[in-house]
Amino acid sequence: MGNHWEMNEQRLWGNIMTLAQITNLDKPWTRRPFTSSYEEGRAFVTELMTDAGLTVYKDASSNVIGRIEGTEPNWAPILIGSHTDTVSSGGRFDGIIGVLIGIEIVKCLQEQGQTLRHTVEIVDFTAEEPTDFGISTVGSRGMVGTLTKEMLSLKDPEGRTLEEAIRFAGGKPEEIEGEIRKTGDVALYLEIHIEQGPVLIESEKILAAVTGIVGIQRYRITLTGQPDHAGTTPMSMRKDALAGAGQLFTELESICNEEYDSPIVGTVGTVSVYPNAANVVPGQVTFTFEVRSIDANLVEQTCQRFISFAENIASERGLSINAELLSKSDPIVVSDVVRNTIVAACEETVGHAVSIPSGAGHDANQLAKIAPVGMIFVPSKGGRSHCPEEWTESSHIADGAKALSRALISFDEKIDNPRFTF
Amino acid sequence: MGNHWEMNEQRLWGNIMTLAQITNLDKPWTRRPFTSSYEEGRAFVTELMTDAGLTVYKDASSNVIGRIEGTEPNWAPILIGSHTDTVSSGGRFDGIIGVLIGIEIVKCLQEQGQTLRHTVEIVDFTAEEPTDFGISTVGSRGMVGTLTKEMLSLKDPEGRTLEEAIRFAGGKPEEIEGEIRKTGDVALYLEIHIEQGPVLIESEKILAAVTGIVGIQRYRITLTGQPDHAGTTPMSMRKDALAGAGQLFTELESICNEEYDSPIVGTVGTVSVYPNAANVVPGQVTFTFEVRSIDANLVEQTCQRFISFAENIASERGLSINAELLSKSDPIVVSDVVRNTIVAACEETVGHAVSIPSGAGHDANQLAKIAPVGMIFVPSKGGRSHCPEEWTESSHIADGAKALSRALISFDEKIDNPRFTF
Repeated sequence: MGNHWEMNEQRLWGNIMTLAQITNLDKPWTRRPFTSSYEEGRAFVTELMTDAGLTVYKDASSNVIGRIEGTEPNWAPILIGSHTDTVSSGGRFDGIIGVLIGIEIVKCLQEQGQTLRHTVEIVDFTAEEPTDFGISTVGSRGMVGTLTKEMLSLKDPEGRTLEEAIRFAGGKPEEIEGEIRKTGDVALYLEIHIEQGPVLIESEKILAAVTGIVGIQRYRITLTGQPDHAGTTPMSMRKDALAGAGQLFTELESICNEEYDSPIVGTVGTVSVYPNAANVVPGQVTFTFEVRSIDANLVEQTCQRFISFAENIASERGLSINAELLSKSDPIVVSDVVRNTIVAACEETVGHAVSIPSGAGHDANQLAKIAPVGMIFVPSKGGRSHCPEEWTESSHIADGAKALSRALISFDEKIDNPRFTF
Repeated sequence: MGNHWEMNEQRLWGNIMTLAQITNLDKPWTRRPFTSSYEEGRAFVTELMTDAGLTVYKDASSNVIGRIEGTEPNWAPILIGSHTDTVSSGGRFDGIIGVLIGIEIVKCLQEQGQTLRHTVEIVDFTAEEPTDFGISTVGSRGMVGTLTKEMLSLKDPEGRTLEEAIRFAGGKPEEIEGEIRKTGDVALYLEIHIEQGPVLIESEKILAAVTGIVGIQRYRITLTGQPDHAGTTPMSMRKDALAGAGQLFTELESICNEEYDSPIVGTVGTVSVYPNAANVVPGQVTFTFEVRSIDANLVEQTCQRFISFAENIASERGLSINAELLSKSDPIVVSDVVRNTIVAACEETVGHAVSIPSGAGHDANQLAKIAPVGMIFVPSKGGRSHCPEEWTESSHIADGAKALSRALISFDEKIDNPRFTF
């Protein structure tokens, strides 16, 4: 077998830095999907894939796929994927390390003359981050059949449809439906990603075996009172929507600070006040809140408990209230069989494996609809992500690559046929 | 003396409706200063003044002044004033009733062949409402010498200076300094205005003798935490600026709901959240708050108490805080002599006089720097003002006009010479 997990740390780091520097010129570390710099980045990825012995093509959803055949060509492939698009003013690691580590693993196997039983596909999924079309994980949706016709007709602010954008990126929207992968078509999906949170760095650990991906419910709450003159309206005659909203902002925090069996987070992220004038009592406040946990029931109960609290406050204050569900996604739970294998690979590599859920969504959310999924996290300095300060040490990335390589070999040995069940 | 307080209610109402309908075409009841519709409105005012026997001129600050000589030409004049500009999408009564009632009173005196001892000036002060130049009460500032050179060089969003705007409105900015009126130059300033609040209408009363004009302190508070990912950052590792701000929004309300010797109001009117994304923990919240009362010490103490509370909350939460004083105006207190005369005039007219402070600023704020001031309020339906729904009943306006006329006659009888002290 050889030291298949001995990565070329320097080469991997060099590739990450090279790809990170292919940016939209006006903003640091920005490579928005469906732009020329995105295509330039993917040309670099294609070159690396080819050099690693992968056969590269773009599928109908414009995912860049590098494929290397295993010795059992009839078995479903193992996929390693992530993405190379970024948010605006994003960082150098989010997404791209997952794609480049996948390529590096195949390159190392090739250099060591090692062939796996499973066919392996390294996937650079199209447009994982929130797009200007209002949706995210475009390419992984396309692959598993959750990219609807309605989504394809969404327009960006310039009036371009998502369908046109996918075509610009080299896809063939009309063929997406015919290429949909179903349960059994993928043996396993693996993804390595930066944590984007502070848990690893604060606990001074290097690798996490992800327990799952949280479910999210997101609501818009509108509190309506009366926009009165701030000088002439006595306190007792006011219907101040903001004073009421203030109680809610702190209450969501209090609820989520309580002890539960699973971790939970709740956030009021956006606020808009009307009329938003220094001398007018706020007549209306609109805010979004979201709750995330790997426990779907806890998410549901927490949202309902918070909305009930909000309704009571509104009633006490003579405000009207409207709560609108904006989005809801179910949690993804990594199966014990997959996680135990990843834990073992991490422990062999660095002597530990922290178990945490992913608080952010990933392409794995989509792949989980058709295949078992597993994920590894590497640390984010200061817990920062989606910002120019995003940073992960080269040695931590190499450790993650080694662990993922170990896990890949291990799965390749364990999974005997397409009907293997996790 | 005759029934000098028998107003022509129908004529007065007709004039109000006519002037209200002279608007900037794009918005209801909008007559912004330094526009052609403002000039059109003032041409109508000039016509009415002339018809009432007033000699009309524009002073250097472009205030429209109608003057009728008294039998004691060496005595300082009594001024009755208000304004004919409106806020954007404002109402039909704010300001203009004060000017038109002044004219109607003079017209009635003229019709009844009655002459006062004091010269009377009816003043339509330039640009009382907040202007695009960032200041308000432009004309009354000019009259009393608080319109500085710096203010005159302020620019509106189109780049026009206030000096140019005043010249457009028929003023002579270079002569403002030479025309400044000083203590002793005005015997008394009277103003009748809509309440712009709910106290009269809720108590089913018609007239209020204003006790004074509240002092205002306005601050901008900035709370700075850390803009973390809302999914990946555990509750315990957050520095959520909005959860902290929420506590402050409700606390200001609580403080101002306590019992004090003088009424007090406190308002958080504007809020801005950064980065204001549904999936990001708010890293910074900026908000304005203001406190108003006729008791200057209470305003000062309340602001300091609130800021101390905010500093404690920030410290507990690991947030940084900055409090910036944006503006501060001292309260105006109506002297007992003036108020008692106005109370008597109101009681004679409608059988009562509610005593309340003005929670809003007026041209009287400026005139108080050089002369005793007195004000009467008439009811605002639903307490609404600065909005298209602003409404005051015709009969209430007529009652206010009668009371103001009575008060004017009474003052004319009481004030014997320019050295009369209130």
